Amino acid sequence: MSLLSIGTVAFDTIETPFGKAERVIGGSCSYIALAASYFTPKVNIVAVVGDDFPEEKIQVMNQHGINTEGLQIKEGEKSFFWAGKYHMDLNSRDTLTTELNVLADFDPIIPESYQDCAYLMLGNLTPQVQQTVINRLKKRPKLILMDTMNFWMEVAMDDLKATIKMVDVLSINDEEARQLSGEHSIVKAAKVIMEMGPKFLIIKKGEHGALLFHKGEVFFAPALPLEDVFDPTGAGDSFAGGFIGYLAKTNDISFESMKRAVIYGSAMASFCVEKFGPEALMNLTQAKIENRVQEFIDLVQFEIVLD
Amino acid sequence: MSLLSIGTVAFDTIETPFGKAERVIGGSCSYIALAASYFTPKVNIVAVVGDDFPEEKIQVMNQHGINTEGLQIKEGEKSFFWAGKYHMDLNSRDTLTTELNVLADFDPIIPESYQDCAYLMLGNLTPQVQQTVINRLKKRPKLILMDTMNFWMEVAMDDLKATIKMVDVLSINDEEARQLSGEHSIVKAAKVIMEMGPKFLIIKKGEHGALLFHKGEVFFAPALPLEDVFDPTGAGDSFAGGFIGYLAKTNDISFESMKRAVIYGSAMASFCVEKFGPEALMNLTQAKIENRVQEFIDLVQFEIVLD
Repeated sequence: MSLLSIGTVAFDTIETPFGKAERVIGGSCSYIALAASYFTPKVNIVAVVGDDFPEEKIQVMNQHGINTEGLQIKEGEKSFFWAGKYHMDLNSRDTLTTELNVLADFDPIIPESYQDCAYLMLGNLTPQVQQTVINRLKKRPKLILMDTMNFWMEVAMDDLKATIKMVDVLSINDEEARQLSGEHSIVKAAKVIMEMGPKFLIIKKGEHGALLFHKGEVFFAPALPLEDVFDPTGAGDSFAGGFIGYLAKTNDISFESMKRAVIYGSAMASFCVEKFGPEALMNLTQAKIENRVQEFIDLVQFEIVLD
Repeated sequence: MSLLSIGTVAFDTIETPFGKAERVIGGSCSYIALAASYFTPKVNIVAVVGDDFPEEKIQVMNQHGINTEGLQIKEGEKSFFWAGKYHMDLNSRDTLTTELNVLADFDPIIPESYQDCAYLMLGNLTPQVQQTVINRLKKRPKLILMDTMNFWMEVAMDDLKATIKMVDVLSINDEEARQLSGEHSIVKAAKVIMEMGPKFLIIKKGEHGALLFHKGEVFFAPALPLEDVFDPTGAGDSFAGGFIGYLAKTNDISFESMKRAVIYGSAMASFCVEKFGPEALMNLTQAKIENRVQEFIDLVQFEIVLD
């Protein structure tokens, strides 16, 4: 089924203890679309860049089957730019620069050819823009997945809650779940957040895996213990792209299917962090992805027969 | 098979954001023995207390089938005492008081009736004392599991490494694994530590679960997401007690069996943290333990059929 992803397409300059990458392709929509492209051939994006964004980077997306008809290119303006530096443990980072540029007044225009999308991925952006996209679709998609971050909880909580109310699946990290709910216990936080609207909730714990909540049920997927992690940038978005890409491919949104989607999402995130920026998402194959998923299966497999 | 556990038997005063418990039974050996007692009827302990340790607390252990013949009671001396206060997130704590008392010159005497033990659990103690216990056993046990902590890495690294070399399984937390190995990556740390001697390595990640390493293989067990965690004290020891208790019960030390043992250990730890001190380990039943293990099975179960 076709997938529409919105979010940012940007330049990132990333510094980690292991090196530095200057002005690589970044932004939530880039990672989501690249990760999802391995699952479904119909990935449409809505985003905005300036005329400084190189044509060949757009062609790379197109080569991955990503439809960039909805990618606005603003003449005489500059693309969103983010620079950050990770600390030694890679779990925390300092933002060095944030230049909104074209993002400041982004008006998400949906091409007519996108109107039939069954799966909608709202990558991290202003909640107001996320909501506008939902409102501009003539038919509600079968499934809406929303990603967001703590920043919007601080500056736009009302907009954020109004948008959360409209989606089926919300994806946030553990600290954001605590902030959004006011509960320290992740289990209690999940209950509070699901009362805000979403029927499914994904709580990402970075190197500690991810939890999927639905009604009284909970599923846990570990992160793969990796020998080397070079750059965590985009891991959450790669997860989301793999997750919704798998759902769009199978067109099965049962809880059992979502559990599998969490594993595929975790696999895509595990590739992402092994190289700088989105580089690791550029040259994957189905065989590599299946081998990685097999590693997840082996990692948690045990057999206990209870009386 | 019979199990011998050494470690501390002590008084703890514990303060968490949810309350305070004064002078409850504490110490690594207490938690290990109580947790293991649900798996094997032959739990022997070697430890030391002062004459301030109440007879009825020893009887509680005996009622759980724990053989206290090797528990030395030092007349005119005081038991080991620890007081600590947990921070809001329960992941970190301040030690308020440590009174070694009888522990300062603990000489671990092994009763003759313990000499046939097949499973040896070295609870957290001076590495030198742990090593003395191994040396005083006439026959090497089938399996030796050692738990330790960062403190010994700071004050007795040589002794620690010499003891680690003698054991089959080492159990430490993620920060300790990094400190012991000098490697930040847990996967690299595990390789370095297994080269020090142990064929199996357990890396505990608290609320984020535990990893079991063996040769090139790795198994991950999640922690159960709990609505309320009251007191993390003794969680690692309860884990170790459940782990080695399960192995002693089944007398199967294959990697597959150890994976199951990690799940049973995680189940015992999940009970432990739900109440203050070792209270939750006092009144468990086989049915409660099996229900808890079923929760772990449900938590990680998914089905993916790869081509």
